[in-house]
Amino acid sequence: MTVDPRAFAGRRVLVTGGLGFIGSNLVRRLVDLQAEVAVLDCLAPEFGGNRFNLSGVEPQIQIAVGDLRDESLLAALLDRRDYLFNLAGQSSHEGSMQDAYTDLEINAAGQLALLRLCREKNPAIRIVYAGTRQVYGRPRYLPVDENHPLEPVDYNGVSKMAGEWYHLLSHRMDGLWTTNLRMTNVYGPRMRIRDARQMFMGWWLHQAVVGGEIPVFGTGQQIRDFNYVDDVVEALLLSVTEPSAAGQVFNLGGDEPVSLLDLARLIVELNGGSYRLVDFPAERARIDIGDYTGDYTRARMQLGWRPKVPLRDGLERTLAFYRKYKEHYF
Amino acid sequence: MTVDPRAFAGRRVLVTGGLGFIGSNLVRRLVDLQAEVAVLDCLAPEFGGNRFNLSGVEPQIQIAVGDLRDESLLAALLDRRDYLFNLAGQSSHEGSMQDAYTDLEINAAGQLALLRLCREKNPAIRIVYAGTRQVYGRPRYLPVDENHPLEPVDYNGVSKMAGEWYHLLSHRMDGLWTTNLRMTNVYGPRMRIRDARQMFMGWWLHQAVVGGEIPVFGTGQQIRDFNYVDDVVEALLLSVTEPSAAGQVFNLGGDEPVSLLDLARLIVELNGGSYRLVDFPAERARIDIGDYTGDYTRARMQLGWRPKVPLRDGLERTLAFYRKYKEHYF
Repeated sequence: MTVDPRAFAGRRVLVTGGLGFIGSNLVRRLVDLQAEVAVLDCLAPEFGGNRFNLSGVEPQIQIAVGDLRDESLLAALLDRRDYLFNLAGQSSHEGSMQDAYTDLEINAAGQLALLRLCREKNPAIRIVYAGTRQVYGRPRYLPVDENHPLEPVDYNGVSKMAGEWYHLLSHRMDGLWTTNLRMTNVYGPRMRIRDARQMFMGWWLHQAVVGGEIPVFGTGQQIRDFNYVDDVVEALLLSVTEPSAAGQVFNLGGDEPVSLLDLARLIVELNGGSYRLVDFPAERARIDIGDYTGDYTRARMQLGWRPKVPLRDGLERTLAFYRKYKEHYF
Repeated sequence: MTVDPRAFAGRRVLVTGGLGFIGSNLVRRLVDLQAEVAVLDCLAPEFGGNRFNLSGVEPQIQIAVGDLRDESLLAALLDRRDYLFNLAGQSSHEGSMQDAYTDLEINAAGQLALLRLCREKNPAIRIVYAGTRQVYGRPRYLPVDENHPLEPVDYNGVSKMAGEWYHLLSHRMDGLWTTNLRMTNVYGPRMRIRDARQMFMGWWLHQAVVGGEIPVFGTGQQIRDFNYVDDVVEALLLSVTEPSAAGQVFNLGGDEPVSLLDLARLIVELNGGSYRLVDFPAERARIDIGDYTGDYTRARMQLGWRPKVPLRDGLERTLAFYRKYKEHYF
């Protein structure tokens, strides 16, 4: 199923984290769909927000720089909005271990504040929360479906789990429309590639486009699945137009599970350069989850979603983007 | 198995929430066992802390009134401690729904601060966290074992879940000794009976000892299991002396599941008075979890724990306590 292009024309939409990786790709799509878009982003230095991500579309949208807990700003932004795509958050494993308190403030307390305002100011708004496969922790079985136990292995997984639960409870207790997507690894143009904070692949792409060496941890045999960002944007849009999505949790997932070693090889094949196996850093080893693939049957059945962009195509597009615009991402 | 009385003699112990219901019963037992006890309690008006709970033993212990996030106070209290019984927290369902932010601050952010200090100042300390069956939400099967999915139905369940996970991660990532007990309904002397904030049974006991009517919600057919507080104290003590308990989660549970209606009848039989079926208040109905009984096989096998005080005996002792001391609890 594809998104009905008329579903968003003239609709008032708020995207939190809209200057970030997934947020900015979503905003651009919404502008194409003729939605009336406002963006809230805190532009915290390490979180992935980047003004260049929305260059060219700024005149067509409203951009507010601020925090989820800024009540008066939020109240104004929520006014008469139809849809809220709630993508603001701290998503770095390492960041959460260095400063677990800030991680909790942003990912749990910030969400509480936002949900309370929605309940008070705009209870009819439809909300999608950007959740993560991290809440599952180390998989007990593959592929991981939505019934898999929640056993996060790092602080960030705990705060994201709390943020997700606050959304679900807002549905069950207060009747808000909230949908939660548990995303797997997402890649594509506009992700942070200055370092590995957002995802290891950010640093790999960085190394590829500067002609450096891609570091592959351990034996590189760990399996992951990937979604190209356009496919994730499609899932976000479907989540607010499918009536049965309210109160539901959906895994996303990829159709081409791949070992990290094979992924590095593919990037080198498409771009040139080299990779190298390196020892697993102790900091990463203790939160490594082994193999992961997500079962997205529920999203397929209920949202009509499936990923469409093959890994090779997505990587080609991504590498082409960074070869052209890399100076904006270093 | 019973606690080895020599295991605590001369040991330096910190009890957070030590002026509260379970905490104060634990402190009294530790004093009997000749431990060197310090108490931290914030004495927040609604949380159940009560100076009368430790009357008579104050000369033998150190009492600090303060918050988990008071770093210098905590650092002093943690100095050279052998055991930390971490019972401080916001445990009211209603409280969490009125002010979910404070609930999160205390139950998650406060625990993060405490665990960080333990890691920095006293990494060998053995920590037991007072968790709750609330993290399971509405049971999918009975009795509920530790593998049951975590699906909290209220904000308090979310914050307690986060606090629990922070303890488990501190074990897995930082090597701290942390054990988590998921407690079911606990009753006994020194619980809050001014209202139903701590547990519905608090208000029932209040009504019984003042000769009022016990309100039973709905049909009263909901099943619950109960632990007398002395049995819970025993489980807490066993958790820091059993070497295999580090990093583990244990359910507690009762041997006499009972319907709320039969419980009300038993209280009336033991104490006199009356009960009445009343409509389920809407606020409670939406977070009601139906029947609950806990499977404590793991605690039995690994800690050698089982509840010893029959419900009838425990209620008799509890009612006798409040008939004698009720003015300190109103």
